Amino acid sequence: MMETDPFSRTAAAGSSEYVPVSDISLLSPCMPTKIVAVGLNYRDHAAELGMPLPDEPLIFLKPPSSVTGPGREIILPEMSRRVDYEAELGVVIKKRASQVGPDDTDSYILGYTCLNDVTARDLQKKDVQFTRSKSFDTFCPVGPWIETELDPSDLSVQSRLNGKTVQASRTNRLIHSVSELVSFISHCMTLEPGDLIATGTPRGVGPMKPGDEIVVSVEGIGELKNRAV
Amino acid sequence: MMETDPFSRTAAAGSSEYVPVSDISLLSPCMPTKIVAVGLNYRDHAAELGMPLPDEPLIFLKPPSSVTGPGREIILPEMSRRVDYEAELGVVIKKRASQVGPDDTDSYILGYTCLNDVTARDLQKKDVQFTRSKSFDTFCPVGPWIETELDPSDLSVQSRLNGKTVQASRTNRLIHSVSELVSFISHCMTLEPGDLIATGTPRGVGPMKPGDEIVVSVEGIGELKNRAV
Repeated sequence: MMETDPFSRTAAAGSSEYVPVSDISLLSPCMPTKIVAVGLNYRDHAAELGMPLPDEPLIFLKPPSSVTGPGREIILPEMSRRVDYEAELGVVIKKRASQVGPDDTDSYILGYTCLNDVTARDLQKKDVQFTRSKSFDTFCPVGPWIETELDPSDLSVQSRLNGKTVQASRTNRLIHSVSELVSFISHCMTLEPGDLIATGTPRGVGPMKPGDEIVVSVEGIGELKNRAV
Repeated sequence: MMETDPFSRTAAAGSSEYVPVSDISLLSPCMPTKIVAVGLNYRDHAAELGMPLPDEPLIFLKPPSSVTGPGREIILPEMSRRVDYEAELGVVIKKRASQVGPDDTDSYILGYTCLNDVTARDLQKKDVQFTRSKSFDTFCPVGPWIETELDPSDLSVQSRLNGKTVQASRTNRLIHSVSELVSFISHCMTLEPGDLIATGTPRGVGPMKPGDEIVVSVEGIGELKNRAV
């Protein structure tokens, strides 16, 4: 329907045109220059992986090429024998952020979205470095949209695999809060508008087979649905 | 002198205008959407870090925000007590590359440049994940330009700290060659034009103090000079 990306359109045309969601395909609601993800940010997930809790946020990167939108396919790569879903609250950056204090992060956050930090668990164990296992194309479903009016401090974060709830936690169990994460990361690198922070996943990660439907839902945002192929 | 980036200028104006290098500041010769770096790709460097050799390339990412150009300052962050230089051959991607065979990589490579994979060694050891230690702003000096006519198979790679040679090796000692790296990485993620691959550093890494001058040189390309502050 459109040739341009949704960001230039938003800037140019506002939201004066209305179309039914059933008539369109949603794209990823942001195009980050980088995705900064946080490992082991729920105690229960660190325990299920048998990993020690970090005293500072443990960060890693996913590349822009891993981003895909709601309803798109998650492609299971030949290189891996086990690819897991990981439901997460995603934070979208509003303006350039460098060395921001933890009490000043609100004005740097555009809003929140659902994110699936898809991970090739076998390659993660083999490499120790998380990069390869989390960087394949389509390994970062994002959406369905950015919710700009939301308090992120106590939201339900869930995932359902083929209709069955497999992850269920709340953001009040995050070890490092959204404000702490944005501040910490902005002291490590400059964040740009549209950049994404993946805040970590709770207990209950597990593998996807071809044909499986995975739905990530965050309270107050909506549902991000994808199918593995 | 110019308001536009060098890429649109190259496309628009070709190279009909000549100015002395002494009159200008060079910028980074590419603006990658991602930088894919390779760890432990020289046996001698793996040995000096006491790390086992990986049987496949061990990849990690540096963010676009870490890129800086020749002559620019490397900012030593407060978070770290030890920041090291790492001289590397950089590979610049020419066109979108996905699942490219090792014999077919030549047409996907625009050329080669010098790269300094600056690393906060204390944070690398602490985090185990390489991300934070390699992602600070200015931690990826690139340049001085892209050499498009070059056989990368047997080039001298060196670094000099305050005029003293501290790293000296040749690309024929790479464990995984440039073709192998481009092919392998293109099977993990889609590479975009301008994306950078950092091919690994040889033995001799060491710390930089404020005021130190670090020069990375690769035979057939030139010298990438930066000062730590």
